[in-house]
This record gives sequence, structure tokens and C-alpha cells, in this order.
Amino acid sequence: MAGNDTEIGEIRQNKATSNWVIFAPSRGKRPHDFKQVKKESETLPVYDPDCPFCPGNEHLISSVILELPGKDLWQTRVIPNKFPALVCEGGSERSSEGIHLRMPGYGRHEVIIESPRHNRQTAAMTVGEVGQIVETYHQRYLGLMQEHRNMMTIIFRNHGWRAGTSLIHPHSQIIVTGMVPQYIRWREAQAQRYFDQMGRCVFCDILEDEIEHKQRVVIENTSFVGFVPFAAEVPLEVWIMPRKHQADFGNVTEQEKRDLAQALQDILSRLTIKLNDPHYNYIINTSARYRANEPQLHWYLQIRPRLTLQAGFEIGSGMHINPSMPEEDARFLNE
Amino acid sequence: MAGNDTEIGEIRQNKATSNWVIFAPSRGKRPHDFKQVKKESETLPVYDPDCPFCPGNEHLISSVILELPGKDLWQTRVIPNKFPALVCEGGSERSSEGIHLRMPGYGRHEVIIESPRHNRQTAAMTVGEVGQIVETYHQRYLGLMQEHRNMMTIIFRNHGWRAGTSLIHPHSQIIVTGMVPQYIRWREAQAQRYFDQMGRCVFCDILEDEIEHKQRVVIENTSFVGFVPFAAEVPLEVWIMPRKHQADFGNVTEQEKRDLAQALQDILSRLTIKLNDPHYNYIINTSARYRANEPQLHWYLQIRPRLTLQAGFEIGSGMHINPSMPEEDARFLNE
Repeated sequence: MAGNDTEIGEIRQNKATSNWVIFAPSRGKRPHDFKQVKKESETLPVYDPDCPFCPGNEHLISSVILELPGKDLWQTRVIPNKFPALVCEGGSERSSEGIHLRMPGYGRHEVIIESPRHNRQTAAMTVGEVGQIVETYHQRYLGLMQEHRNMMTIIFRNHGWRAGTSLIHPHSQIIVTGMVPQYIRWREAQAQRYFDQMGRCVFCDILEDEIEHKQRVVIENTSFVGFVPFAAEVPLEVWIMPRKHQADFGNVTEQEKRDLAQALQDILSRLTIKLNDPHYNYIINTSARYRANEPQLHWYLQIRPRLTLQAGFEIGSGMHINPSMPEEDARFLNE
Repeated sequence: MAGNDTEIGEIRQNKATSNWVIFAPSRGKRPHDFKQVKKESETLPVYDPDCPFCPGNEHLISSVILELPGKDLWQTRVIPNKFPALVCEGGSERSSEGIHLRMPGYGRHEVIIESPRHNRQTAAMTVGEVGQIVETYHQRYLGLMQEHRNMMTIIFRNHGWRAGTSLIHPHSQIIVTGMVPQYIRWREAQAQRYFDQMGRCVFCDILEDEIEHKQRVVIENTSFVGFVPFAAEVPLEVWIMPRKHQADFGNVTEQEKRDLAQALQDILSRLTIKLNDPHYNYIINTSARYRANEPQLHWYLQIRPRLTLQAGFEIGSGMHINPSMPEEDARFLNE
């Protein structure tokens, strides 16, 4: 009978949420094992006549909410999502059905077209172009949060079908909800507990620890530090966090926007080159309405490559099994 | 410019966790839209010489922990996982690294081979065969929980690659952890809050509501009710819940094991036939150690078909967007 490979791993705690993550080296994955198989010379065109996001195809979209200039006529364009998860009709009044609560599907769902060019992915963009995307996020964030019913704004990007998108043309999305998700309340409560005990923002402490030990840092610039978190849930996860304590993404400065664009473009290029265009999600985790000035919250951009699949254990326990060690991930990204 | 489809959806609360789920009918999915494309006459053999779980290939496994009889030499067999997420060396002592906590990767990780036949999926089994699988779960659950360091036992099944498995031979898994996952503590706290307020188990109340309204019930037998939950996170999610208040799966009776097997076999057959063998996970959600007698907890088996993908919004908010309504899912399963 074959022997068991029983190399002992470790379980690490995410200090910000108290979630534990299992690291399983006996599953034998190294960062380079996640390199994607190259597709058969899939050269995308700069323009696709059927793509609703390409210039010239405006008959396929309903309206333009915002447009920022670029070298071409426009560089970024914000439009309503054609199949919105939430719509701006209805309010947030709860009603009962038996013992249950429900509310109308109020909210906002917008698409940010990141380039007029069908085939221009973030990793191939200039820092200036990524800067226009960040600027678009910021302007829409401020615009949407002016409406007092909007409690939570989630800005995110899905790249590739494993990350949940079917459209190739580079785009991000914004979803605004009229209530604060329970998961975000849990995160807040944990950060509050840490603050009440230690008198400090848990994210500021995490950042200081990363800068001091440098084992997991992958990029530093004037305003941001990018690192693989100590308890990364998935291989090659990266958090890009402002050095300055700042609960709300809405408060970023001009300098910070430029620096965020630089860090984001750099990390996404490295992932794209080293892993051969892996699918990924990124999300801006920021504070809910009324929490923008809290001393215990801290926004950050979270990049999650989609290299592993969540199975029954993850659904049942809420814990992740990560086959790759964060320190090794960081070394791989820095090579 | 094309018009927007802005049919207003609704947001529903999972009473047990307080999580909200977005239902988005404008995304236009109906249960039958999730029917899988039939593969080209993929007829699996009853025996695969390279499969570590097939009888005769015992040189590919390290040891047998438990075996239950069937018509053949054995029907179910429990073996150690060859690539365990957790191993039985080490303890649960925490240590610090900077501001972070870590602990050794202590735990158990076993595989339950559900049939000697390579191609015999649960949906095609007799109720008696599924009964032996449930019996195996129960015996291993009781066995593993005898070890006092084992705090949480998660029994789960991954069916198909979208559900996170690469092995075809029918099998489930058990992972035991030496700590209680934070997510389960959150679930417990929510159930506790409901109990303290209402004086009743929230799961008993959910069950009573389902039985009374019948809109979402898909199966009933002497001991169990199967239903699509009011705030199902994914299309065609089904919970199979014991009628009797019971926090701990370890306390199931002989009758209950038979009835669970009947309900499970029935629902998995319906899913397999109606959706053409969709990938799915199922999980037995039960109480952590020391909570087995709590009046506010209630174990249940949760079936989650993998018909949609979780994207950036779900990662950032912890909320799901479900394009299919639970009442319609139930009608579809009952047709």
C-alpha cells in the first residue's frame, strides 16, 4: 500500500476577521504550478462589432452615465448594467412573509468600460490609463454615495470566466446596496473589538507588521503597500492598502489615486506575465455609510486570482484551504 | 439605444444567519435554463485500473479505516485522504508571529468511498445503498468525535469538477478541525440571539413555516422535510432538515438514517434527471463540540448545485445574487 504524504501544515488567523485559513503544503502546490496553459494564439481584435462596450456600438447600450477623456474620444465610460442585480426603483422598507424578512431589490448596478479598445487588458495599460479607471471609480463612488439611501458601494472587477464574467471587453462593475451586508457588519464588529482592546486600527497594525518584516510585501510606493496577507485565503492573493489610515475610499487624494494605479497596474502585470493571464477578481473593500470616519476601519483593494475551486468544506465551514504559502507567493511575485 | 430590463427583484434574509440574498429576475434565468449540455455518450466503466478507490487497486491506498458490507465484498470504505488538508500530528496550541496567530495543521481528513463500482453515482443507487453511506457518515462522526481535541466535523460531498473534485469514483469526505471556524461561531451567535428573543430554535421555526406554507417543500417523509430555503443563495439549493429538534448529527436514530437516505436519494435523482447531471456539493451542517445539546441549533443537510459562479461582488459583500426564485425552483423539482 502507498504511503501517505502527511507533511504537517499550519492554520493561520486573519487578524481582521478572526477567520482561520488552512495551509496545506502536502497538497504540493508551488506558485508556478498555477501557471495557465496558453491558449491557441487567441489574438483578440481591437474592435468587435457585436460588443456592446466597443465605440460605434452605442445602439447596444441604453445610456452613458459618465465619460472620462483619453487619447481616443474617451477612455472610460460608465453605463447602466443591462441585466442589473439591483435597480433604482423601490426603497428599503422591510416586509414580512411568515417568519421571514424581505425588501425590494433597490440599488444600483453600473458597468465601467475601462478602454474603448476591446483587447486592452489592465496589465497592458499605461499607469496613466489605469489612473483614469481609478479616477472613474472615485467619481462614481462619490456620486453614488450622495444618495442617502445608498448604504454600501462595492466596486469590483471580474477578469475571465472563472472569475464570473463572459464579456471580454475590459470592464469593472459597481453595485450599490440599500442595506449593509451582514458579512460587512461582522468584519466591522471584529475591527471594533480589536480597536477597543488595543486602541489601534487592526489594518494599520497589519500594515506596520508587513512593512517591518517584509516577507510578504510585493510593492511599495509613496502612498500604498501591496502584500500577500499572512492568512491569504487563495494562492497569490494580494492586498493593496493605503499607508495612511483611511476608512473610506471616497477620501483618496490625487496623489493616492496615481499611486494606487501604479501599484494595481504593476501587480496585475506581474500576475499576467508570471501565470499566463490567470482569471482574477479584485474588489475595493471600503466602509459602509456612516462609518467613513471610524478609527478602526481601513479601505484596501483586494486581488483574488481564481486558481483553486471552493468545495463543500469551504461552503460548510467558511474556511479556505490554501495549498500555497504567502511567503512563497510573495517571493514568486518578486522574482 | 436599447432599453434596460429593469424588472424589480427582491432581497431576502436568511433568518438563521441574517445574511441577505439578492434575487435578480431581470437576469432572466428559469430553473430549466440550468440544464447541462449532455456530454458525448460518456459511458463510464464499472472498473478503472488507475482509480485508487476501485476494488483490486488497494496498492494505491495506504489503509482502510472502516468498511461496511454490501452486495459485493463491501459497499462503503473509509480511507485516509492521500493529500490531506489537515493531519493528526500536532496539537491546537496557538503561537504568535508578529501580531498574528497560527497553529499547527492538526485535524483529520478522510475519504468515504461510496460504492465499489466506479460509475455508480448516488442518484442511481438504491435507498439501501445510500443508507449505508449515511450509516458510514454516522459511524465515522461518532468515532472521530470521541477524540476530545476534535472540535468540528464537516462531512461533505463534491460531485463534478465545478464542485471541486477531479475523481469520478463516487466518494464523500470528512474533515475534522481542532478549532471551531469563525463562520460557524457567527451562525451560532445568530441562532442564540433568535432563541434568546423568541424562546425557540430558529430552524424549528423555519421548518414549521415551510410545512405550513408548502410553497418551497420538495420532499416530506416521517423524519425529514426537504425544501428550497426562502433565501437560497444559489439556484435549486435544497435543505433536508430533521423534523425533530436535534442540534447534533451524532444523535440520529436508525429510522432517521433510513429516512435521510430516502430524501437524499430522491432529491439527487431529481436534480440529476431534470438538469442532466449537474455538479453539486452537499454538506452536513451540525453543531460544534460542546453544543450538541443546545436548544437553538439544528443540524441539516444542505445541497448546493454549482450552476452559477461567485464573482467579485460575492467575495466583497458576502452576499449572493441568485437569478432563480425559490418558489419556482421548488415547482420545477416537483413537476
